[in-house]
Amino acid sequence: MAKDFVKSITSMEDDFAQWYTDVVTKAELIDYSSVRGSMIIRPYGTAIWENIKEALDKRIKETGHENVYMPLFIPESLLQREKDHIEGFAPEVAWVTHGGDEKLAERLCVRPTSEVLFAEHYKNIIHSYRDLPKLYNQWANVVRWEKTTRPFLRTLEFLWQEGHTCHETEEDADRETIQMLQVYAEICEKYLALPVIKGRKTEKEKFAGAKYTYTIESLMHDGKALQSGTSHNLGDGFAKSFGIQFSDRDGNLQHVQQTSWGFTTRIIGAMIMVHGDDRGLVVPPMIAPTQVMIVPIAQHKEGVLDFAYDLQKKLSNSIRVGIDASDKKPGWKFNEYEMKGIPLRLEVGPKDIEKNQVVLVRRDTGEKQFVSMDGLEETITQLLTDIQDNLLKKATDHREENTHTAVNFDEFKQLTAKEKPGFIKAMWCEDQACEDKIKEETSATSRCMPFEQETIADTCVCCGKKANKLVYWAKAY
Amino acid sequence: MAKDFVKSITSMEDDFAQWYTDVVTKAELIDYSSVRGSMIIRPYGTAIWENIKEALDKRIKETGHENVYMPLFIPESLLQREKDHIEGFAPEVAWVTHGGDEKLAERLCVRPTSEVLFAEHYKNIIHSYRDLPKLYNQWANVVRWEKTTRPFLRTLEFLWQEGHTCHETEEDADRETIQMLQVYAEICEKYLALPVIKGRKTEKEKFAGAKYTYTIESLMHDGKALQSGTSHNLGDGFAKSFGIQFSDRDGNLQHVQQTSWGFTTRIIGAMIMVHGDDRGLVVPPMIAPTQVMIVPIAQHKEGVLDFAYDLQKKLSNSIRVGIDASDKKPGWKFNEYEMKGIPLRLEVGPKDIEKNQVVLVRRDTGEKQFVSMDGLEETITQLLTDIQDNLLKKATDHREENTHTAVNFDEFKQLTAKEKPGFIKAMWCEDQACEDKIKEETSATSRCMPFEQETIADTCVCCGKKANKLVYWAKAY
Repeated sequence: MAKDFVKSITSMEDDFAQWYTDVVTKAELIDYSSVRGSMIIRPYGTAIWENIKEALDKRIKETGHENVYMPLFIPESLLQREKDHIEGFAPEVAWVTHGGDEKLAERLCVRPTSEVLFAEHYKNIIHSYRDLPKLYNQWANVVRWEKTTRPFLRTLEFLWQEGHTCHETEEDADRETIQMLQVYAEICEKYLALPVIKGRKTEKEKFAGAKYTYTIESLMHDGKALQSGTSHNLGDGFAKSFGIQFSDRDGNLQHVQQTSWGFTTRIIGAMIMVHGDDRGLVVPPMIAPTQVMIVPIAQHKEGVLDFAYDLQKKLSNSIRVGIDASDKKPGWKFNEYEMKGIPLRLEVGPKDIEKNQVVLVRRDTGEKQFVSMDGLEETITQLLTDIQDNLLKKATDHREENTHTAVNFDEFKQLTAKEKPGFIKAMWCEDQACEDKIKEETSATSRCMPFEQETIADTCVCCGKKANKLVYWAKAY
Repeated sequence: MAKDFVKSITSMEDDFAQWYTDVVTKAELIDYSSVRGSMIIRPYGTAIWENIKEALDKRIKETGHENVYMPLFIPESLLQREKDHIEGFAPEVAWVTHGGDEKLAERLCVRPTSEVLFAEHYKNIIHSYRDLPKLYNQWANVVRWEKTTRPFLRTLEFLWQEGHTCHETEEDADRETIQMLQVYAEICEKYLALPVIKGRKTEKEKFAGAKYTYTIESLMHDGKALQSGTSHNLGDGFAKSFGIQFSDRDGNLQHVQQTSWGFTTRIIGAMIMVHGDDRGLVVPPMIAPTQVMIVPIAQHKEGVLDFAYDLQKKLSNSIRVGIDASDKKPGWKFNEYEMKGIPLRLEVGPKDIEKNQVVLVRRDTGEKQFVSMDGLEETITQLLTDIQDNLLKKATDHREENTHTAVNFDEFKQLTAKEKPGFIKAMWCEDQACEDKIKEETSATSRCMPFEQETIADTCVCCGKKANKLVYWAKAY
């Protein structure tokens, strides 16, 4: 048992789906359990999520929001209060029908999202414009009864934060919706090194019960898109269904304007599929639980381990440094930490100690360099910044290379038929019939109407009628 | 609307239960929802829990544990794998029977605790002694179908952390069980200012499926006890049921030795019932979301608000400082922040500014003092330490005053019949019949067999037979 075997994975080009499954399991992000469609998030996956969560929670608090915690269960009658919402979610909720041996008088659903719970609470606590805005957020698990599941990307249960806010005016609500989308984009770009397209969802693709939905969309290595975060302006729909009213500055009763926005463990799937390669995971330094892994060379020789531990201690002030002093072979260790996508490997052996140097190997480029022990902390800090920047640049370049334009349906169909379709920018007449037809014939969906609009043509890519809305289309996860 | 009304609460002596309900709602810790037995944890309650969680998570990680996340649902067949465990939990679980419109082939229970999920995972990932110990923890919500519920103390759903570990030997598992109980005791005493009695549960009161259970018990203001954290040595019971085996250092197959331990939002109930008073909540400085609340006096006068904001900014380096610059009357504000139990109130008005001083009012003692602006940060830091120490001392004194001894059943019954029974130390013959009889006749239960044993008598307080085990008894939440 416990042999030093080297893990190997399927190549991305051979079978991207199998590559993904290999990476999530062999990098020890997740394990499967006997619960269909649910995953066990292992220590490494959890540590990555905790780093993302910490960065996002900080921004959520800095922008004035407070965390709360709502119940897991929603009585069926409460879920039914907002008509569009229940229609959207009823097919995919899990129902609790028994407590112990007792059959419940009313079924409870396990929350798929918590708009109705927040709405009920807001009705209780909001009376005057002085009570506004209410800027709440919760970190929670939610359940959606999906038929087909994949780790992180689509699971029965997932972890997320869901923000829920109430405002006096439509303008305030719109400002909030935009602000939180910007926060998501910032977390993606700054921490996860994921470039995103910001835009608005079409009516067909918006959140059930929303006035409109903003989204950030990213492009995976295989040319498929992934919705990476959404922010909804709910208008006064829920407020009217739940009677959330306040007396305004003139003493008149008004309904509040609401927003909600969510960001999930799904983003880890995006990180894997954007940065990963045939050697496994690549984790951006900003969210890497271990930024540098020290691998001692010839560690049985006197002084090597002491030196390595001492180095770890010194670097730990400003860098997250691990050390593997196990009796496994260096080659096994190199492979293991490449599989886990640790940004930098630091090798140090007797000769290095003699020469007052260490060896640094970048995970993103494979580049190996001998660097002096003098100023090592600064050297590493700079390298981590370079790696972070390089990952964002590579991902942005990849997206640009795989973003195409189409001016008619033939071009569109040719692009979507490619093995790696990418984003397709094309004009749309805003008629849902065209959106439906495109999906039916190409399986591409409208990802968003980007904030940065361009005029590629005057006519709809599908029906040829007059069109002035640019849409990003893609096959998507 | 939005009048400056002063909140008032029921007196503790008149009706402790009503006092508790008043405090949790009027200090805005929780709100009720239409979900029976579940609570909404409002921003203030959530912020307190986040501070407790942060302190405990730090200690859990320092002691070598890693966080993971397990599924919310447990298939019925998996729950049934450990016989004692299912017997203990089956009557109080919520069952999911439908996903969308589809009836499930097998019912799923909403986790009441996750031993079986961890056991299944451990079987997959543990093969050799090199894989041990496995020291995992998760922060999660769990559900227990309770008939009677009270905010924090007993709710259908609650938040907690549950640690689950695997070890090579019984000694390792025992050391872990003790270590984590000590961590809980430390969090209670150092952060929550809650003195606890550490000990072992009787067979009757131990966790379903455990070899034995250690517990920390605290005493509430009304003389009832509250179990405040438990740590279980699971022995190899789950390991045998689930086949979690490893090849030991001699190459023989052995079952792992396991532990589990949990600490919940219930502890907020203990904090309320130990430190609270007739003016509301009292939050220990170490976990107070706001340690100092600045209330500007005559804030319409020139320079007062600027001075107050400036002060807040200066103090914020090392202290969690809030400011209420709303147009509500100072009297309303005093009352509000006393209700919320904020450790220190800082008043500052034009005269204070002139005299280079501020007014500080302690929440715990009501003591008011004029202190110089010079060295204010140090003065406040010292005062917060004093308040923290005083709360622990007061609570310890209260517990000592309400800890009694009984050497025979008459004495025991007299003590339990008192309005404020407190802890009763009495000897027990270790026969469950006596434990049952005591509960039946007095409604007191065995809280623990304390680690610090004493010999109060030679005979069992109930049956009069030879006894050498000291037990803490109490009526309990």
